[in-house]
Amino acid sequence: MDIEISEVGPRDGLQSISPIMATADKKAWITALAAAGIPEIEVGSFVPAKLLPQLADTAELVTHARSIPNLAVAVLVPNLRGAENALAVKPHKITIPLSVSETHSLRNLRRTHAQVLDDIRAIRDAIDALPEGDRPHFEGSLSTAFGCTIEGEVPESKVLEMAGKLIAAGCDEVGLSDTTGFASPAQVRDYTRHIHELLGPERLTGVHLHNTRGQGLANVMAALEVGLTTVDSSMGGIGGCPFAPGASGNIVTEDLVFLLESMGLKTGINFEKLFEARRVLAAALPDVPLYGFTPDAGLPKGFRPATAQ
Amino acid sequence: MDIEISEVGPRDGLQSISPIMATADKKAWITALAAAGIPEIEVGSFVPAKLLPQLADTAELVTHARSIPNLAVAVLVPNLRGAENALAVKPHKITIPLSVSETHSLRNLRRTHAQVLDDIRAIRDAIDALPEGDRPHFEGSLSTAFGCTIEGEVPESKVLEMAGKLIAAGCDEVGLSDTTGFASPAQVRDYTRHIHELLGPERLTGVHLHNTRGQGLANVMAALEVGLTTVDSSMGGIGGCPFAPGASGNIVTEDLVFLLESMGLKTGINFEKLFEARRVLAAALPDVPLYGFTPDAGLPKGFRPATAQ
Repeated sequence: MDIEISEVGPRDGLQSISPIMATADKKAWITALAAAGIPEIEVGSFVPAKLLPQLADTAELVTHARSIPNLAVAVLVPNLRGAENALAVKPHKITIPLSVSETHSLRNLRRTHAQVLDDIRAIRDAIDALPEGDRPHFEGSLSTAFGCTIEGEVPESKVLEMAGKLIAAGCDEVGLSDTTGFASPAQVRDYTRHIHELLGPERLTGVHLHNTRGQGLANVMAALEVGLTTVDSSMGGIGGCPFAPGASGNIVTEDLVFLLESMGLKTGINFEKLFEARRVLAAALPDVPLYGFTPDAGLPKGFRPATAQ
Repeated sequence: MDIEISEVGPRDGLQSISPIMATADKKAWITALAAAGIPEIEVGSFVPAKLLPQLADTAELVTHARSIPNLAVAVLVPNLRGAENALAVKPHKITIPLSVSETHSLRNLRRTHAQVLDDIRAIRDAIDALPEGDRPHFEGSLSTAFGCTIEGEVPESKVLEMAGKLIAAGCDEVGLSDTTGFASPAQVRDYTRHIHELLGPERLTGVHLHNTRGQGLANVMAALEVGLTTVDSSMGGIGGCPFAPGASGNIVTEDLVFLLESMGLKTGINFEKLFEARRVLAAALPDVPLYGFTPDAGLPKGFRPATAQ
């Protein structure tokens, strides 16, 4: 596999829409996504159920997803309490967001940077206390890395500073996250290069982009250029960030897979089964609009995906 | 100006929709586009009115657009007859399409390659017979360069061959056109590099991309990487190719301008006036859906376009 697609629809998608998808439907969707060859799925977030009732069944989904062979199971955790709940069900990866904009951090997580970093150190300790085989990969996601709907411009120096602090506090890796849909390809390129110089390329391999202004796949091109190998996306483009008003729309998994496969980059994903997973999603959420062009346009006549070659 | 946007909505957009926009509305739209700083507009096509009644007023639009200072006025011509009609009203640029897929050429223009090339030689003679100041730039557009809805894959060797023949027949320049929405960034990059090697970089400076599978701006990234400096787009993404079923959707001017300006590339375009031109279009065609994310999302807080700096 050349590029790993991390499907975040069950977390970032479902947390942003009002209908609550039934747990059985979520399991069927996750199963269908994995059957299509999606290598990693972020199945939920360990937030309090009263805050995000859409994701109240995350623990059950981790257990379900862990039963699927060759699937990496990821979850989001907002804090130490969430991480403890996550570790109990053994996901392969846990991601904690840290908003580079501290104003956004206070509104989103109700925490200062110092408080988030304290939690990260405690989570690191909790992970290290586990038997070696049970330790998940621990990522710190740099939210609002490319700009903030409240503060506006977020200085790159602040992004680099927080990336260093996340690693120092115990994250295995950092991720760049365009929470607000402000990212330009020039930023994706520059920030990635500078973090690689600062912390080493193994400390940043993935990017989480939104399509708020239609720039999602252009930003993916920049990410590929600087050697990132994991790209988050959401089936049907559902989701976005509920705490960043006006910022909605993940990049669409279906169009992203087409982009990569048409460039000769293997994703391991089968288009027919991917479109089948989209039908599972559409049937479970009939009132939620799904984005993406490739499912409607179909594959070009004579198209040969890289994965099939 | 770093990148020149050529707005093709009045031609490629309006030819693909069934409502016929009133000539006065088209003039107001063209005026608004030019006021926003769009440097080049393809105002129409010299096709028989019975074939495309939507574009029957092209000659009048050329005259109107020529009266606007600092605006390059482009038109499409399908053949010698169309070119003669175009030359009479003195556009700055005429473009003749040649479908690299000969099957598509027969269905689209009802002509073989040899017949199109004969016309190009005759058009070259007609241009050369004009006083030097009246001679338009003459471009041959390589339609279906990236694949054909009828033939499927179009070999790159055929694209290079036809590029050479267009120049030999008298075109000043060739353009790559993703008529069918099949293009991948790898193709845009490779084909451009190879045509540059074959004919010189000055013989290929522009690209016409569709967004059929959501890949438009990703393909623009590839075009920028290999030094192309003119990008066609359509306000609201209206249009596509009426002769390639299932292939619809130009790249959206509004999102393209945001991409370029956010990367520090100057387009000379003012966003407020661009959104005003979109309102002029929307008011004239209330039933036509307009695409694009940036107009709805608005500019990011604190955003500074390159052109304004």
